Amino acid sequence: MFLTRTEYDRGVNTFSPEGRLFQVEYAIEAIKLGSTAIGIKTKEGVVLAVEKRITSPLLEPSSVEKIMEIDEHIGCAMSGLIADARTLVEHARVETQNHRFSYGEPMTVESTTQALCDLALRFGEGDEESMSRPFGVSLLIAGHDENGPSLYYTDPSGTFWQCNAKAIGSGSEGADSSLQEQYNKDITLQEAETIALSILKQVMEEKVTPNNVDIAKVAPTYHLYSPSEVEAVISRL
Amino acid sequence: MFLTRTEYDRGVNTFSPEGRLFQVEYAIEAIKLGSTAIGIKTKEGVVLAVEKRITSPLLEPSSVEKIMEIDEHIGCAMSGLIADARTLVEHARVETQNHRFSYGEPMTVESTTQALCDLALRFGEGDEESMSRPFGVSLLIAGHDENGPSLYYTDPSGTFWQCNAKAIGSGSEGADSSLQEQYNKDITLQEAETIALSILKQVMEEKVTPNNVDIAKVAPTYHLYSPSEVEAVISRL
Amino acid sequence: MFLTRTEYDRGVNTFSPEGRLFQVEYAIEAIKLGSTAIGIKTKEGVVLAVEKRITSPLLEPSSVEKIMEIDEHIGCAMSGLIADARTLVEHARVETQNHRFSYGEPMTVESTTQALCDLALRFGEGDEESMSRPFGVSLLIAGHDENGPSLYYTDPSGTFWQCNAKAIGSGSEGADSSLQEQYNKDITLQEAETIALSILKQVMEEKVTPNNVDIAKVAPTYHLYSPSEVEAVISRL
Amino acid sequence: MFLTRTEYDRGVNTFSPEGRLFQVEYAIEAIKLGSTAIGIKTKEGVVLAVEKRITSPLLEPSSVEKIMEIDEHIGCAMSGLIADARTLVEHARVETQNHRFSYGEPMTVESTTQALCDLALRFGEGDEESMSRPFGVSLLIAGHDENGPSLYYTDPSGTFWQCNAKAIGSGSEGADSSLQEQYNKDITLQEAETIALSILKQVMEEKVTPNNVDIAKVAPTYHLYSPSEVEAVISRL
Amino acid sequence: MFLTRTEYDRGVNTFSPEGRLFQVEYAIEAIKLGSTAIGIKTKEGVVLAVEKRITSPLLEPSSVEKIMEIDEHIGCAMSGLIADARTLVEHARVETQNHRFSYGEPMTVESTTQALCDLALRFGEGDEESMSRPFGVSLLIAGHDENGPSLYYTDPSGTFWQCNAKAIGSGSEGADSSLQEQYNKDITLQEAETIALSILKQVMEEKVTPNNVDIAKVAPTYHLYSPSEVEAVISRL
Amino acid sequence: MFLTRTEYDRGVNTFSPEGRLFQVEYAIEAIKLGSTAIGIKTKEGVVLAVEKRITSPLLEPSSVEKIMEIDEHIGCAMSGLIADARTLVEHARVETQNHRFSYGEPMTVESTTQALCDLALRFGEGDEESMSRPFGVSLLIAGHDENGPSLYYTDPSGTFWQCNAKAIGSGSEGADSSLQEQYNKDITLQEAETIALSILKQVMEEKVTPNNVDIAKVAPTYHLYSPSEVEAVISRL
Amino acid sequence: MFLTRTEYDRGVNTFSPEGRLFQVEYAIEAIKLGSTAIGIKTKEGVVLAVEKRITSPLLEPSSVEKIMEIDEHIGCAMSGLIADARTLVEHARVETQNHRFSYGEPMTVESTTQALCDLALRFGEGDEESMSRPFGVSLLIAGHDENGPSLYYTDPSGTFWQCNAKAIGSGSEGADSSLQEQYNKDITLQEAETIALSILKQVMEEKVTPNNVDIAKVAPTYHLYSPSEVEAVISRL
Repeated sequence: MFLTRTEYDRGVNTFSPEGRLFQVEYAIEAIKLGSTAIGIKTKEGVVLAVEKRITSPLLEPSSVEKIMEIDEHIGCAMSGLIADARTLVEHARVETQNHRFSYGEPMTVESTTQALCDLALRFGEGDEESMSRPFGVSLLIAGHDENGPSLYYTDPSGTFWQCNAKAIGSGSEGADSSLQEQYNKDITLQEAETIALSILKQVMEEKVTPNNVDIAKVAPTYHLYSPSEVEAVISRL
Repeated sequence: MFLTRTEYDRGVNTFSPEGRLFQVEYAIEAIKLGSTAIGIKTKEGVVLAVEKRITSPLLEPSSVEKIMEIDEHIGCAMSGLIADARTLVEHARVETQNHRFSYGEPMTVESTTQALCDLALRFGEGDEESMSRPFGVSLLIAGHDENGPSLYYTDPSGTFWQCNAKAIGSGSEGADSSLQEQYNKDITLQEAETIALSILKQVMEEKVTPNNVDIAKVAPTYHLYSPSEVEAVISRL
Repeated sequence: MFLTRTEYDRGVNTFSPEGRLFQVEYAIEAIKLGSTAIGIKTKEGVVLAVEKRITSPLLEPSSVEKIMEIDEHIGCAMSGLIADARTLVEHARVETQNHRFSYGEPMTVESTTQALCDLALRFGEGDEESMSRPFGVSLLIAGHDENGPSLYYTDPSGTFWQCNAKAIGSGSEGADSSLQEQYNKDITLQEAETIALSILKQVMEEKVTPNNVDIAKVAPTYHLYSPSEVEAVISRL
Repeated sequence: MFLTRTEYDRGVNTFSPEGRLFQVEYAIEAIKLGSTAIGIKTKEGVVLAVEKRITSPLLEPSSVEKIMEIDEHIGCAMSGLIADARTLVEHARVETQNHRFSYGEPMTVESTTQALCDLALRFGEGDEESMSRPFGVSLLIAGHDENGPSLYYTDPSGTFWQCNAKAIGSGSEGADSSLQEQYNKDITLQEAETIALSILKQVMEEKVTPNNVDIAKVAPTYHLYSPSEVEAVISRL
Repeated sequence: MFLTRTEYDRGVNTFSPEGRLFQVEYAIEAIKLGSTAIGIKTKEGVVLAVEKRITSPLLEPSSVEKIMEIDEHIGCAMSGLIADARTLVEHARVETQNHRFSYGEPMTVESTTQALCDLALRFGEGDEESMSRPFGVSLLIAGHDENGPSLYYTDPSGTFWQCNAKAIGSGSEGADSSLQEQYNKDITLQEAETIALSILKQVMEEKVTPNNVDIAKVAPTYHLYSPSEVEAVISRL
Repeated sequence: MFLTRTEYDRGVNTFSPEGRLFQVEYAIEAIKLGSTAIGIKTKEGVVLAVEKRITSPLLEPSSVEKIMEIDEHIGCAMSGLIADARTLVEHARVETQNHRFSYGEPMTVESTTQALCDLALRFGEGDEESMSRPFGVSLLIAGHDENGPSLYYTDPSGTFWQCNAKAIGSGSEGADSSLQEQYNKDITLQEAETIALSILKQVMEEKVTPNNVDIAKVAPTYHLYSPSEVEAVISRL
Repeated sequence: MFLTRTEYDRGVNTFSPEGRLFQVEYAIEAIKLGSTAIGIKTKEGVVLAVEKRITSPLLEPSSVEKIMEIDEHIGCAMSGLIADARTLVEHARVETQNHRFSYGEPMTVESTTQALCDLALRFGEGDEESMSRPFGVSLLIAGHDENGPSLYYTDPSGTFWQCNAKAIGSGSEGADSSLQEQYNKDITLQEAETIALSILKQVMEEKVTPNNVDIAKVAPTYHLYSPSEVEAVISRL
């Protein structure tokens, strides 16, 4: 069985006899090796929280960026290959700026997500912007537009879903269960912060500190929490 | 026998000694993994109904789009790789808009279907719009033009057929049998809604709710049912 | 022996030690899987008749097109991969229209056939119009020009022959024998209709009906028979 | 030994350790499968004669073209893959027309032959006009220019030779021996016709008829014999 | 296990079933073969120190450049394939000059690092500036901009981190441990020089001389130490 | 050992572990299969003499060209694949004509040889003029320029040497020995003719006649000997 | 172990699991097959001396060029594939001429060396000037610029080092040892000539004559020694 599988899984973009695209599935595995990230949507806005793996005390924690701003009304958390994520985010930043320039208004969160996935889908096509392999990264895209707050989840196949709450990365299985138990549509943004961090705390091996987690919100504009703001959330746990 | 087959099935676009194109056949397998979709043509218009697999209660059901509008007189339901379907639908939207712009009239449903299949057929050709593998998706294309309502079915080989009723996806075998039993050309649009949903109900493991199915009609313009409209059809079952 | 053969047969365009091009031979096999088509030339014009495989009663028989018009004086019947045939026919339609536009007269049937074969021959060349594999289809091209009626037969190697009568597809072997027995140059167009349909009847497993065969003539312009015209021919059998 | 050979013979354009190009040698094998063609030069002009394999009585003999006009002073006979030959002949026709247009005089027979061989040599180069494999065809090019009549022979390697008489195709070995016995430089054109046809007769399994052989001469202009002219030559045997 | 790995590790940019990119991991191995380099950030500026492997007494020590200036406010130390590093440094020099020309101000250290990593990430993409394999080099980038001194570390995957102190190359494991013990944020630039050189001394097999180490600082401009300045640091050990 | 070699020798342009380029070495083997050619430099000019393999008495000896004019002051003899040689000679003719046009003077013999070798070296590079494999031909280039007469020898690796006398092709080993015995710098052109032909005679299996050898000289302009001039040299043997 | 290696060494530009690039290492092997070359730097200038392998007494010794002028202040000696070296030298000549034209001053020796190595590094990249494999040649580049005399050594990986003295080619190991023993920075140019030739004499199998060695100096301009100048050096041994 395993031998048979290997016959099909190196062709970057080839179907196996069961109709599967193994390179995409392996890229999805790359995300299971990544650090955990959580997103929660509330009526007031969306909260993103990520674990930062600080492998050495000499590393500057603020340089391990796993939450990034795309536009002033959109931010994203990531898990997987960070260099791949940077390429996608850079692409999205150009798209949203172009949209503002061409139409004089912000790009919607869904259109931005679609633009990211269009690029992700075209791996192996050989054109200028695409990669020769799937992007090994998942994103949680938080935004706020004319339809209010929204949270999107993308995977390496170029597919996306809108969610109320979602976890990605190595701890995503346990975190998703906890989210289903604790989430309801009426929680406040502050409650969402607390839930996100308490779940991160469960899946992280180390003690949670302002150094090894990042929190951001889009409510309605993107804001990355300062260490003292993170400390304030930690103190509420 | 299996060993011999594997000699030919990874070349994206290579004939086996029996004259078969295995990558296309494997892409067709990808559709058998997809959710079920049903289309029924009546004299009043065409009904599309799809199963939506909501894998988590935190997922926004409306963001799982398996029925999409192509133009105001054409919509389609899909089964297989959703990201591939989005590429095809986007291509069709551009084609129909170009047609309106150039000729001042809507593109016919058959021409639209042909345009989609032209793109699907050219996989592995290396030009700008085509994919390096077959598109892993089947579409049910519902439309209404000068020839009245029509329903087309496309597969990954770039072939299409006109049908009175058709099911695709994992439950298509059973659903097609039911359609043959229950269909006749004189059913009303309302009867078609009921038949489509009652057949979906048989092939779905979960209880049918406005959250896990979508219904749309083209009669003569595209309309995606609201949750309450879906609820109304469910109540008729 | 078979092992040795497989060493050469996957290179799309590579000679084996005996000077054979296996991918072309395998494409020819693809046609042996196709439905049967028959063409007969008479002094009054040419008759084409094809078997249509209607796999479901819900399929619209008229959408299974195995006879197509190329120009008003040329039509063709096909066997093999229908999507490939559409590409060839579309190419021929453009060529014949260009010819009319440039020279103010219809393209001859032989020139049209040559244009089709030029495209078929260039598979694997990587230019814009060609395929990366041989076209898996054979055509019977019926036409009428300044030289009177003519019938051409093309195969996936890009070779063509002019014939008085010819059958292609899964039943071609038996059908060709019957044609040789029954054909003479002086038969009328009506006799040709009857011969074509009676031979199709022998090779088809199902009962012949207006739903599962198509008949067309070029005499001197292309005309696809209506169901009642087909019924009339069936009644003469 | 055979195993060792197969290591080198699929690379389209790769030397074996002995300095051989196997794909070219295999293409030359393709010609040994072809029908026999004969060319004879006399002081009055050049005669070409070919065997036509009529596989079915329903085939139109005149559509099996194995002798073609390149320009009014040049014609050629072919053996091997006919579709490949058509590409070469079409290329030569364009070259000779361009030459007439640019210089106001006919292209010499040697320049025309060189132009054909330049194209044949460049297989596997990936440019627009060349093939991805060697052309599987040999030509006998008969012409008449300011140097009088001449006969050239080309093979798939892009090499050419000038000859007094030459046979190609499946019967070439025996036919060449007969030519050496019967040829001398002072034979008349009529004697050449007789010799060519009597040798074809020896290598063909069927009875020679105007249907299964073609004869042409360039003396000094190209002329393809009508069935009655062929009949006249047959009657002299 | 090892056999399984080799199935995936030669495709330049292909995921293994566990979601790993082996060619990147192997490039990282290339750096473990390289000479050791150390960077330390202080409030006064950043110190870089490298081991130079002088394989022959006839080699000009100053021509073995393992610390290079990028712009007047940025320098970098390298370990791995020196020729690859030169390409990256040359690219960064052009970027920083372009930035000065376009915006009239120096490029920030982070933007410069990002520009280097963008190029490193795009290996295997086939465009003009990128390589067909990962760059086999790690860099320690020291700079000083409006945010004060900073030290970045890049690896062949195109990822970068900001650090207070970092060692790369064959002795990096031991050197990193020593750095963690000896580093604190309040050390002076002079103390950083001493720490860097004393750690290099531990990992080098030979005696430390001005010939086999290089030291540079960015405080706030780039300065490569002269042999006598290096001698002065050595004398403090 | 042989197995190991085959691992490296099919990559057109790949080093083996011993630093060898096997495809070039195999191309050199191709020349050992070729007919013998001899070049001798004297103070009066350079003589070239070649064996012509006339495989059939019906072949026109003058059409077997193994000595060709490049410019009026340069000629060359060849051994190996004649079609490859034609491409090189054609390239050199264009280069020398361009040089005359641009500078108003003939190209030197060394520059012409260098231009030929530049093209030969670039095989496998994929640009427009180069081949996808090494040129399977060696040339003896005889010329006369401002430096007096000169003789160059090129091989498939794109390397060239200037010689006083040189033999290439299947008989080159014996011929080179004879040349070393009989050559001195003071021989006359007529003596060189006699030496060249007497050595050819030794290595040829057939009797030497004006039909199966060609002689040319550059003294100081290119001249191909007529049959009677060749006869005159033969008579001196 | 050897089997494992062969898995990685044919990919032109692929890392092995230990981070090695085997094709570059094999190209370096090619140089170990080459003739020996020696360079020595003195305060007066730089001396280059090479062994010339004259395989036949009929070869013109002066046409075996293993020392070449790049610009009037730069020369180089080479070992390995001479045709590859010519491409590099030609590239350097264009670069130095362009530099003179653009800036009105000679290019520095280091910049010239860097330009050569940039080209050498980019093998396998598919752009216009680069090769599809590493250049199989090492160079000793001798020059004199505003910094005085300098000697650089390049290898196929595109890396370069500045040296006081260096030997390359098949005899380099023994020659390098001798150079370390005999070299000091204060030797005169004449002493350098003597040392270089005496070391060449040790590693050459034949007696040293003006025919089988070449000597050049850059002091401060390039000068290739005439046979009598070489004879003078020999007489001093």
